[in-house]
Formats: sequence, structure tokens, C-alpha cells
Amino acid sequence: MRFEEAYSGNVFIKSHPNLEESQVVIYGMPMDWTVSFRPGSRFGPAKIREVSLGLEEYSPYMDRELEEVKFYDAGDIPLPFGNPQKSIDMIENYVDNILEAGKFPLGLGGEHLVSWPIFKALHKKYDDFAIIHIDAHADLRVEYEGEPLSHSTPIRKACELIGPENVYSFGIRSGMKEEFQYAKESGMYMAKFDVAEPLKEVLPELSGRNVYVTIDIDVLDPAHAPGTGTAEAGGISSKELLEAIMLIAKSEVNVIGADLVEVAPIYDHSEQTPIAASKFIREMLLGWVK
Amino acid sequence: MRFEEAYSGNVFIKSHPNLEESQVVIYGMPMDWTVSFRPGSRFGPAKIREVSLGLEEYSPYMDRELEEVKFYDAGDIPLPFGNPQKSIDMIENYVDNILEAGKFPLGLGGEHLVSWPIFKALHKKYDDFAIIHIDAHADLRVEYEGEPLSHSTPIRKACELIGPENVYSFGIRSGMKEEFQYAKESGMYMAKFDVAEPLKEVLPELSGRNVYVTIDIDVLDPAHAPGTGTAEAGGISSKELLEAIMLIAKSEVNVIGADLVEVAPIYDHSEQTPIAASKFIREMLLGWVK
Amino acid sequence: MRFEEAYSGNVFIKSHPNLEESQVVIYGMPMDWTVSFRPGSRFGPAKIREVSLGLEEYSPYMDRELEEVKFYDAGDIPLPFGNPQKSIDMIENYVDNILEAGKFPLGLGGEHLVSWPIFKALHKKYDDFAIIHIDAHADLRVEYEGEPLSHSTPIRKACELIGPENVYSFGIRSGMKEEFQYAKESGMYMAKFDVAEPLKEVLPELSGRNVYVTIDIDVLDPAHAPGTGTAEAGGISSKELLEAIMLIAKSEVNVIGADLVEVAPIYDHSEQTPIAASKFIREMLLGWVK
Amino acid sequence: MRFEEAYSGNVFIKSHPNLEESQVVIYGMPMDWTVSFRPGSRFGPAKIREVSLGLEEYSPYMDRELEEVKFYDAGDIPLPFGNPQKSIDMIENYVDNILEAGKFPLGLGGEHLVSWPIFKALHKKYDDFAIIHIDAHADLRVEYEGEPLSHSTPIRKACELIGPENVYSFGIRSGMKEEFQYAKESGMYMAKFDVAEPLKEVLPELSGRNVYVTIDIDVLDPAHAPGTGTAEAGGISSKELLEAIMLIAKSEVNVIGADLVEVAPIYDHSEQTPIAASKFIREMLLGWVK
Amino acid sequence: MRFEEAYSGNVFIKSHPNLEESQVVIYGMPMDWTVSFRPGSRFGPAKIREVSLGLEEYSPYMDRELEEVKFYDAGDIPLPFGNPQKSIDMIENYVDNILEAGKFPLGLGGEHLVSWPIFKALHKKYDDFAIIHIDAHADLRVEYEGEPLSHSTPIRKACELIGPENVYSFGIRSGMKEEFQYAKESGMYMAKFDVAEPLKEVLPELSGRNVYVTIDIDVLDPAHAPGTGTAEAGGISSKELLEAIMLIAKSEVNVIGADLVEVAPIYDHSEQTPIAASKFIREMLLGWVK
Amino acid sequence: MRFEEAYSGNVFIKSHPNLEESQVVIYGMPMDWTVSFRPGSRFGPAKIREVSLGLEEYSPYMDRELEEVKFYDAGDIPLPFGNPQKSIDMIENYVDNILEAGKFPLGLGGEHLVSWPIFKALHKKYDDFAIIHIDAHADLRVEYEGEPLSHSTPIRKACELIGPENVYSFGIRSGMKEEFQYAKESGMYMAKFDVAEPLKEVLPELSGRNVYVTIDIDVLDPAHAPGTGTAEAGGISSKELLEAIMLIAKSEVNVIGADLVEVAPIYDHSEQTPIAASKFIREMLLGWVK
Repeated sequence: MRFEEAYSGNVFIKSHPNLEESQVVIYGMPMDWTVSFRPGSRFGPAKIREVSLGLEEYSPYMDRELEEVKFYDAGDIPLPFGNPQKSIDMIENYVDNILEAGKFPLGLGGEHLVSWPIFKALHKKYDDFAIIHIDAHADLRVEYEGEPLSHSTPIRKACELIGPENVYSFGIRSGMKEEFQYAKESGMYMAKFDVAEPLKEVLPELSGRNVYVTIDIDVLDPAHAPGTGTAEAGGISSKELLEAIMLIAKSEVNVIGADLVEVAPIYDHSEQTPIAASKFIREMLLGWVK
Repeated sequence: MRFEEAYSGNVFIKSHPNLEESQVVIYGMPMDWTVSFRPGSRFGPAKIREVSLGLEEYSPYMDRELEEVKFYDAGDIPLPFGNPQKSIDMIENYVDNILEAGKFPLGLGGEHLVSWPIFKALHKKYDDFAIIHIDAHADLRVEYEGEPLSHSTPIRKACELIGPENVYSFGIRSGMKEEFQYAKESGMYMAKFDVAEPLKEVLPELSGRNVYVTIDIDVLDPAHAPGTGTAEAGGISSKELLEAIMLIAKSEVNVIGADLVEVAPIYDHSEQTPIAASKFIREMLLGWVK
Repeated sequence: MRFEEAYSGNVFIKSHPNLEESQVVIYGMPMDWTVSFRPGSRFGPAKIREVSLGLEEYSPYMDRELEEVKFYDAGDIPLPFGNPQKSIDMIENYVDNILEAGKFPLGLGGEHLVSWPIFKALHKKYDDFAIIHIDAHADLRVEYEGEPLSHSTPIRKACELIGPENVYSFGIRSGMKEEFQYAKESGMYMAKFDVAEPLKEVLPELSGRNVYVTIDIDVLDPAHAPGTGTAEAGGISSKELLEAIMLIAKSEVNVIGADLVEVAPIYDHSEQTPIAASKFIREMLLGWVK
Repeated sequence: MRFEEAYSGNVFIKSHPNLEESQVVIYGMPMDWTVSFRPGSRFGPAKIREVSLGLEEYSPYMDRELEEVKFYDAGDIPLPFGNPQKSIDMIENYVDNILEAGKFPLGLGGEHLVSWPIFKALHKKYDDFAIIHIDAHADLRVEYEGEPLSHSTPIRKACELIGPENVYSFGIRSGMKEEFQYAKESGMYMAKFDVAEPLKEVLPELSGRNVYVTIDIDVLDPAHAPGTGTAEAGGISSKELLEAIMLIAKSEVNVIGADLVEVAPIYDHSEQTPIAASKFIREMLLGWVK
Repeated sequence: MRFEEAYSGNVFIKSHPNLEESQVVIYGMPMDWTVSFRPGSRFGPAKIREVSLGLEEYSPYMDRELEEVKFYDAGDIPLPFGNPQKSIDMIENYVDNILEAGKFPLGLGGEHLVSWPIFKALHKKYDDFAIIHIDAHADLRVEYEGEPLSHSTPIRKACELIGPENVYSFGIRSGMKEEFQYAKESGMYMAKFDVAEPLKEVLPELSGRNVYVTIDIDVLDPAHAPGTGTAEAGGISSKELLEAIMLIAKSEVNVIGADLVEVAPIYDHSEQTPIAASKFIREMLLGWVK
Repeated sequence: MRFEEAYSGNVFIKSHPNLEESQVVIYGMPMDWTVSFRPGSRFGPAKIREVSLGLEEYSPYMDRELEEVKFYDAGDIPLPFGNPQKSIDMIENYVDNILEAGKFPLGLGGEHLVSWPIFKALHKKYDDFAIIHIDAHADLRVEYEGEPLSHSTPIRKACELIGPENVYSFGIRSGMKEEFQYAKESGMYMAKFDVAEPLKEVLPELSGRNVYVTIDIDVLDPAHAPGTGTAEAGGISSKELLEAIMLIAKSEVNVIGADLVEVAPIYDHSEQTPIAASKFIREMLLGWVK
């Protein structure tokens, strides 16, 4: 499948009409079949696009406008309902294509398992890269009730793929005892509860490196992101997440791709979650794509 | 797995404490991973039990009380998230056990694919049985976008298993052209749009036969059942569905099991869908279990 | 425009500013403390008034306009939270005053127990009157889990006060076995499931009599009235309830008062329940007050 | 403005990619600034398109598939917020273009005032045509609180433009006394409360004539269409509206265009209103475009 | 109890019955026709009044009770639907009257355009005054898609009317590039993102001056105010807004009037936005009216 | 009544199957009949249990797992609807039994009045104990509109029972003037607005004492807990409440029991309030039961 074919209509505001001329490809991964609690993130990408129409094109945070970054919203990958293995293969293949074309992949989830095939595709292209993981959940399980393909496992798989010393987690406030033990013993970095302060400490040591950033919207407190499947009290504010995006933008790391996952619109009738997500996407575009 | 182990707390009102002494086993199938539109029916069984607390134990329709039928609510089968094949195998095995114990299986969905393994289990026990299928959708697809395990296929599979001449569909108002053609040409029975009137015509010819009844809540108009994944305008009222349950109760068919599927609570904030579903379950217990 | 004129207040649309000149007193009874399932009907009266602003003043059913009936909306009686006995006493006293002033009492509930003190006040004034009771529930319990003051008891109390032969129930589809037995054996009239057809049969025998009408909004199917505490599937449509109101209006009975109870706005985000209720109130005013 | 420019992404399922080859143009009119009660119908067209993805392409009512009718969804006309006069002028001009191109205009509202400029455009093209108006409200006001441009006036304006004898209203259950008097005295046709039965009577006399059909979604009971601004209890079911669409499809009238207005998604969290509306649009396409 | 006493009305809690004796006039401006995204603020004033019933009359922030300030809630100005120019003229005329009577105008919006005619009325009365503007949006546009009367323009108009050096904006986090450039170059004051800290710096320089304060509820993060039309992530908490109100109360500025706008109740089912707004109004009354 | 009998199905995750072997008894008090504003907290305990299924069993805050504390969830006490006095008596008797059995009582409300009978039961067992009260409201009224049994009175009653010098309130931001005066003059401790900072100051002086902790969920800002009856803007975040629970856990006080009250699920469709509450219960179990 070529990714032009996935086009489904609805696009992120100011999406460039031409793929070839674009630096960035925005693509949706409408998958939620392995989630263990409340499904619905399959509609996240479409809703983020829909409410992006209410966004200003200018960011007072980055002092930059959307027209300064050429991005092409390729729509959703048509993932097969209820088939995680095939979905993962399709995503990996899709991101292979984006990387081959020299574009910056900016993915919209969907459940967090979608990041796993992206890591695999990146691993084929880059000798060496690090992952910044911003999330309420450790996602370090080996399996979930017997299923190795689960939304609770992608960061563990990442550690095994690129080495735990290249994985940096922030904001973590939920997981099994074994996950926190693994974090301590494996050599990965994990900051519990907070994001901005520990980022300030860690970013200097990542200077000059290629970094992929994966953000699970549930790192926000449910007050700021009620529209997600596994809400977890005690999270950060959207103001702190905006600060984190700015910190990365102003650092010396070289962002090579990013995703934002787990927006599940049905649990949020005020639409504040997808509205916030669309703003984060704007900031990621303006701050991380040079 | 023995089904005693699946017990999870929350039970249908007046559930009997003892399995052995019960005629009926109520069991939940919290699965929604192959649905093509809006997920959420995994929470249907739990919600139906929860709101059953508001039910009267007496039915003025059947002039009978819940204590006159001994039923055991065994809770939900712990189906593995995102794994349709394994889920189906577990359901089939589970219903095998119920049938072997000589109990009446009364299943709560979950998506409609859950009926397929039930049909298979029944087929092993009964030489000959018919299916009454009450639904908005034909569910006669061979596959859905390449996936043979889909919530759009169980009735087609049933036709292939027990012969289309033993399958009777009612209330159908949605499907592909091919599905309606198959219905016409295969020899199965299909009543479009209505349920009660065609049932009156068909029930006499089913007299004395073993019959399994599968009800998809979306046969109701979305006015009466907003809490479902694939709402389809132009359906019947809950009054007509109650009449249909009574018609079967008063007929000469021998009901050997039943299910009620596709209640997705998240789309219905007034809870009218699970409240109605719990009433239908009460009527099925009082009318169909002699 | 002077700004004094902009004052709106929260009263039923076209409420007359002067009590003395009015034929009717509309009054709210914001009480829900004895309900056994979902509370919230305390906000029913205020919401019915609020959405009455969207009503047309003319009724094409009655071919009459609101200005043809002088009614005064007196607001809510300030009932003491959590004190059923005192609340009931206050309502009785309040309706005594209305009747003494020669006005037509039109009450807004609140839970159905509020009708009991109204019956008592009427009984002091009228030697002989009948009750038309339109409801999903029989409300014929002697007590509810030990509490004689319960929203499940007012019609039983009415039977004991004015004699069961003067009580006519319509639309009943829920209750305990004992309640249906009492209905059969006591000599009261009860029509199960339907309203309009049985009304046509019964109204002639009520010709010339004084009749009080109490309507529980849950006689409607939850499709038509999701905003109520004890929703019960299988009800009538709002079209049938409008027809019932018209049948009474065109009959020879002398309506001496009425109430509409159990609107609980919180369960209905579309506000269709209070919107429908405000229309029923308009029709009751135009059809029943001569 | 040429209408190609209004394209906004999101399109009705199976929209043809090419305008020139299409028989029908679907266009949205996202305007709600003159509504007197609850706004929000500006989001109706986008939502109807969005949920159309859940539609089957085949209709068992018409026994026809969407690919048999070529239609082009041109997106929403970019109407200026808060400027009714300019909005109306833009719509008239837009429909002029559609008619000039020989296409069938199928409009999505928006408030009902949007039909007024369509009537004007049709009047320039057709010497003689009739209007079938299906609605809860008479919409026969001369003005609304001093404003002649109001969602309560389009049918009155139509009567004045093409003669009341060419206007046929169905399902009307709300309006001022003056509106019902005008209906009686002017020579227009008005059926109160019902749609299908009176249509059966009237359609023969419209045989062979050019007819434009305007449907206000609030003709449905709020049970079937909670997502609308001015809900009015006592309406018809979606089953009856589907029957009405079929009656027109099977009659001898020549439908020259149509619209469906007043879907306001925010009041309907279950999305049943836009889901029903998208089905009606499918039936209108398959039944009315030959 | 006589039933006349039960009359409640829909006014802000503790509204004084007599206009002449009051220092303050509360008035609603139910207008939302020029908003570019989600309408619904027309119902803001009524909802704020309704939920004010849940407020305590005493403020532990100001250590003062509502009875210490005499205010008269005059209800909503009956603005004509869909006519911005006439609406603006009516508001200006209305505020002229309040000012002429020597009262403090406390306005409830409605969209933010309603502040523009208030500025004009104040300008006629006061030679010299400053504006404190607390908002997520700069509102500095010259026009919005060609319409000069838009909810995105009032602060620009204010700058032109009273001089940009008299306009102080706080909390701004959204706007076009041109708006931020204008803010920098024009000489007005603009604090991005925060409110309380910059207020502490600026208030001393406003000592002794007449100041009008306009608060757009969307300065709050959507977590704290989901019920608004143009939600913008990254805002302040309600605790910070309460602090800002206290800072102004304790400063040496002379507050000559105020408004609170853009509460749109339909997007907030928990009612937290109007509940918060009613508390802010109480604090404004107790803190700003001496 | 023995508390084993109150068992109703649905239990908190990891509830121990055996009462005798447990250190803690979790019990629900489904009562909301004296609340003055929005009812619904009767469903709080059931909902907190239901969503506890989504909790991790490990706490990264306490570094402890649920299996390290044996607790038995005894279900809800079957309180009589609308009868506050009898409800209170039943709760007192119930807690007497828990204390007699030497278990730690962990109660789930229900309205805050439920804490009053708990205080009485503790007073019989302990010569000397203190109360930590975390709440938005002072709850120091003598009566509420004439009713001494009200959700606004329990802390006043506590002061009278065990002496005001043993009562410590935190986070208070709402009440009558008289309540704040009583707080000042009586000798009790009250921290306005904040919780964590004042706790740090006060906990040392409580070292070694027996302390009962009662938490009203409305101490959280409505952003963090929309699902409560009397929402009050300007509250603390769930992060701060988690910190407060940890401060108590790490202090030298001896917690002898606790409750969490006023969760009213109906006002919170995202379920963030009961989800947060279930996490607080986990932390209270892991932090306060040694």
C-alpha cells in the first residue's frame, strides 16, 4: 500500500496539498483493539483533525506560523478491525515508506501499541537514537494477561530493541511493581509524576542525539484530558505539557519523529481533549521540525 | 477454565447463589474488538447487570416472578483483549460446558460475533435446530474488509453450519446488496423492517422445533436503544420487541438458548438501553425457560 | 427600552402577574428524597419552566391560546431537604390554600409521593371525586422496604382514602405481583400497557364527575422521556399522551386539578423530557381549564 | 465565488471525485444565526458527512446502491458569521450556479432560513414548481420579533413567491394562531401532525409536476431526533419519515431538488440524529434522483 | 406560609428587589451570533443565575456578605437574533441608562463582542479610563473574514477608541501573528499566558485611575471552564483567577464596571463553568463595589 | 443487622474474600436525602467499586501492593430512602460492629452527614481522638433551614462531641459567615483554601495521637472532581490531595479509620471523579493501614 491511498477527506488545518513538497507526513493509526479498559481511541485521529479547524495558525509559544512548516496530512491507515498483528505490520511498512522518502513522521493514535512498529521502522533507518516517552503509564509489561501485543507493552519492547539506556520516560505514575523494578534495574531513565523539571535535567545529556518523542495524552491529569481510555488522577496540567514541548524545541536534540496517542473522544463531551491535542500537534510541528 | 471461575461480583438481580440447582446460566462475553464502527459493547454485560437492580421481579407480561426460574449469573468470560480467535474458542468451550451440564445458556454481548461460537457449540449437541435472528443488520457477509472474523458475519456462518433453511431473520434494514441477494437465493427466511407481524406468520411452522434466539439490540430504533455501536434509523419500538418475546413465549417452539448483544453503554447517558435490555432478559427468562 | 422591562424571572411562559385574577395556580414540589432508584426530580419544576420559553403560545391541538386561560405560576414550595413528613404536610397545607381560594391546582413534581397530600386536600373539599392515574408503575405498595412514605405508595393510599372504585389507572407496566393482585381484587380500574384506547372506553362512565388527573412522565417510553428516575421500557409515545390529554379535554368530565411528576432533567441532555412536559402542561391548561 | 472553492475535506460517503460527471451537488449551509432558541445547526452538515461513513452503500428500501447515482459533495459554503443577509445572497448565488450547470441541488442545513434563497434560485429557473414541506413548525411568520430574516419565516416567503396553492406542508404541530389561520385561508395545503397518510392523498394531484422537497429534521419526534434546536414533542417516527421518502420516490412527481435542515449535533450525544439524517440523505439520493 | 412567598424568579441570588436603591445593575446580553466556532453563550447569563442558588452568600476571600452590596438583577436585554448591529446599539443604549442612573454596570455575556458597546457608553461618560482585559484570546483583529462586527475584534476597537496605552491584556495565549505584532507596536500592554503575576506588576501604575474590567471565561484552562465556545489549552486555574480578582480588589484602582463573558453551558454537563462564573460574579460584587 | 448481610456483589478490586482475616472493612453508605443542591451521591460507592477494576494494584507513591493489606469490601448498608434518622442509626450500629471486631473502618459516601454517626461510634470506643477534615465546605452549621440532620452540619456536631480543639479542617473555601466565626472563636483549627502546606505544619502536633480522617471529594477543584453535588471553584488539584494522603502516611499519627464522601457519578460522564476516588482509596489503604 502506498500512503497516498489512505487519504480519507478530513485533514489537519493548513495541511499542504502536495506530499512531495512536504517535510512532514501526518498519519492516523485508528486502532484500539488491544486496550484493556475503555476503547474508543480509534476515533482520536479524525477528531483531532476536525477540531483543528478552531486553531489559530500562529503560535505565540514558538512565534511561528503553520505555513512556515510544510506538512501533508495523509489521513488514516486503514487498519483491519480486531487484527493487531496485521495492523502492526501495516504501520511498520507505512513508516518505512515515510522514512525512505526522507519525511518526518508525525503519528496520531490510536492506542499506544501503535508506537511499537514505528520504533521498529526507525531502528532500521537509524543506527542510534533515543526515545523520550511522556506518559502516565510505564508501559513496560512483557505481556498483558497472556497477550504480548498489548497497549501496556510498547516501552518494554523499545528497551529490548534499542537498549534501555536509550529510553527516557517522564510523568509515570502507574504500573505494576515489576515495571518500576525493571525501570530501576535495567538502566533506563524514569522520572515519576513530573515532566518539565526532569526534562530540564535530562535534555543536556541528549544534546546532538537523534530523538523520537512519543506522548500519551493520559500524562495529563484527567482534568485536562478526560477523553482517554485509562484516566489516571494526579497528572500534569496542559500548561506543563506545553512547557515540555517548548523545552525540547529549544534544546539541542534532533527530533526525528513523534506521535501523540490515546485520545478517545467519546469520554469527553466538551471536546477539550482533542482540542488540546490539536494544539500540541501544532506546537510539535512548529517547535520540532526545523 | 471452569465457568465458576469467571465470577466477577456484580450479578443480575435475583441470580441464584448455586449453579448446580439452576436451570439457566447467564454469562457475559465482553468483546468488541472486531467492530467496524463504534466500540464499547465490552461493557454491555456489566451495565445490564448493574441496572437490573432497578427491575421489578414480577412481569405483568408473563404474570410470573423471577423466583419461579432458577438462574445463575456466572459473570463475564475473561476474554483476551484484541484476540478474536482465542475469544471465540473460549466462548465455544464455555458454552460446551453449559450444555453438557444440561443448563439453558443465556448470553450477554459484546459484539454479535460472539454468537458464532455459541452456534458451533449447539451444533455439536443438537442434530437439528433453528435460529431466530432479530437484528437491524443482515450479518450475512463472508468477511469484512478481508477479516473473516467480524461482527458482520455470524449469520452467514450460521447458514453454512446448519443450512440456510434453518435460519430466520427479522427486522433487517441494513446490509450490502450481496447479503440481501444471498438471503433471497439461499433459502433462508428474511423479514425486512418488521418483527412482530412476520413472527406471527412464521412461528407456526417452527412448532415443536428446537430454536435458539439471538437478539441484536440495534433492531430497536435508536430512539429506543441509542446505546449501541451501529445505530440504524427506522427500527422497531421496545414495545414491539416485548411483543415479539411474548409471541415466542406463547408459541410451541422449544427455546434451547438465547443471547442479547451489542449494548454499548457509553453512547447512552440516560441508560435507557441497558435498562431496556435488563427488562428483555427478565422476559426471556420468564417466557422462554419452562 | 427601559431596563426594568427586560426582567424575565423563571416562570412558566405567559404566567399572569396577578394571583387574584388567575383561575389556575401552577406550583412546584421540588422533592425527591424517598425515591428508590435515581434521584433528581427536585429540579423538574424549574427546568419545565425554563424550557417553556421555547413553547408557542397557541395549541393546534386545542385551537386555543395561553392568554385565554389566566394562570399564575407561584414558583416552588420550599420543601425541607430529607424530611418527607414535613414536606407532605406543607404541600397539603399549600393546596388547601389554593382550593380555598377557588383556584385550579396544577402541580409540578418532584417524585410521585407529592400527589398524596394533594389527594388529602381534595378529599377535604370534595365529597366525591375520581382520580385518573397515568403512569408506568402501579404505585400500589403499602410501603417500600419498611417506609410507608415512599414514591411507590401514593395510589394505594388514594384507594384507601376515596375508595378503590374511584381510582382509574392507565398505562401500567411495572409493579410487584401483590400490586397487580390488589388492582384486580380491590375494585379499582387498571389498564395495562395502553392509555388512549382504554381511556376512550372509561371516560363515558366518568361523565359529569369531578376528576383529578395525575400523570407520571414515565408512562412515556424512555425514548420519549429519558429524563426520569425509574425508566421502564415498553411505554407509550408522546403522541399517545397528547391524544390522551385531548380525549379528557373533549369528554364530559370536570377536571378539578392535575399534576405532572417525575421529570428528572439530569438524565436527559437533549432536554427533550422537560420540553415535552412543558408542552403537556400547556395542553392541560388549554384543554382542562374551562 | 465558484462552488469548487468551498471544498473543505470531509465528504459524504461515496461522493464522486468529479463535479462535471455528477448529477447531484451536495452542499452544506452552516448557518444558525437567526435561530430563536438553541443554536448549533451550523455543525449539522459536517456531522452528517462524518457519520455517513457508517452507512451501508446499499438501500433495502430502494433496492439501489450509492454508486448508481453520481453525486459530488462540494463541502460547506463559507457563510459569514452573524450576517444573515449576506449569507442568503451567497446561498442564492451558489444554487444559481448548481442549477445553471444542470445539477440536482441537495442542501444540508443549517437553520431553515437557508431554504429561502434556494426557493428564489429555483423560481428564476422554473416557471412552475411546487414545494413539499415536511416540518414540525409552520414557518409561516411574516417576521420574528421584528426581524424579517428568521428561521420562522421561509414558508411564508415561499407562499408569497410561488403562490400558496403551490405549497404543501406536512406534519405541522407548532406555530402561532396567525400561521394556522393563514394556512387555512391562503389556499395552501397543510396536514397537521401526520406525514405519510396525507402524502398518499396529495401525491396523485402533484403527478407530473416539478417539486422541491424541504425536510426539517424536527418533524421527527425528539425521541428520534433529539439533536435539533427547537424540539417539539408529538412527532412522527423515523420509520414514518422513511416511508414518506419512499412514497415520493414511487410517485409520479419530478423532484428537482431537496434539502434537509436543522440537525444540531451538540444536543445529541448518541449521534442518532446525524446518523438518521445521513440515512435519509442516502434514500433521497437513491429514490429521488433518476 | 402563603403561596405568594414561594415565588422564586430567575435572578442572581440575593438580588435586591428595588432598582433605585441598588448600587449595581446586573444585566445579561444573550448574544452569540457572530462567533466563529461553537455558539451557545446566549444561554450563559440565564445559567449563571440559575446555579447562583447554590452559592453561599458569604465570601471567605473578601470576608464580606452579599447583603453588604445592593445589586439589582435586571434580567436579559431582549437582543434580536442574528442582528449584530441592532444588538450592539441596544446594549450601548442600555448601559447609557445604567451610567446615567449612577449605577455600576455588571454585564453577563454572551459573546465578547458585547463589550464593545459598553466601552462606547463608558467613553461618553468618562474622560479617561483604562481597561483590564483578562482573556485567552487577543481579540485584536480588525475584522473576521470580512466582518468588522465579530467576537474577535472588541479589544482592537477599544484601543482605537481610548488609546492602546490605556488597554491592559492578561493571560493571552492565542491570536494571529498580526495581533501580537499590534500588541507590541501599538503601546498597549499585553501579558502572555499568566494573569496574577503580571497584574501585581501593573496594578501600582493604575493606582487612582478609573478602570473597567472585562473577563472572558476562556482565560481559564478548559479543565476549569469546559463550557465555552473557543476552548484553548494551557490556561490558568480558577484559583489563579480568584487571586486576580482579589488583587484588583485590594489595589488602589477605581473599578467603574465589569463584565464576564463567553460562558456557553451546553459544552459542560457538570455545570462547573457556570458554577465557577457565579462565584466570580459574587467576588466581583464583594471586592470591586465599594 | 450483621454487616455480612449487606453484601451486594460489586466489590473493590482485590477485596479479600474473608471478613475475619481482614484488617479493614470497606463499606458503602448510599445516602443523599438531606443534600440541599444536587443529589446523586447514593451511587458513589457502587461506582467507585466498579471503576476500581481499572486500577493497578501497585502504588508508586507508597511503593506497596494491595495484597499487602487485607481488606474486606462488605458492600453497601441498605439505608432506608428518605429517612435520615434511621439511616444514621444504622450507620452508627454498623460501625460499632466494625470497631468491636477490631477492624479499620473505611467508609464510602454518600453525603457528608454519614460521617456523623461514625464519629459517634468512634467516640464510644476511643477516649481521645482527633479528626482531620479535608473539604471545600466548613460543614459547621447548627442546622440547615431548620433541619438539624443535614449534610452541612457534621463537623459542628463533631466539635460538640469531641471538643473543637480536636478538629482540624483543611482546604475550606465555602460556608456562612457564622461558620468561619465559629472556627475562629471555638478553638478548632481551620486552614482556608490549601491542604498540603498547612498539613505539614499541623501533623507534628498530632504525632502519636489517634486520628480519624474524613475527606469530602469536593475539596478538589471541579476541574478534578466534576462528579459531586456542591461543586466549588478554586479548589486543589488531585496531585495535591495525593500529596496530603502521603503526608499523613509518613507522619506519626495513628489513623484509626477514614471515609471518602460526596462522589456523585451522574455529573461526570468521563468518570474521572470515581476513577480518582478509587485511586485515593487505594492510597489510603496502602498508606494508612499499617
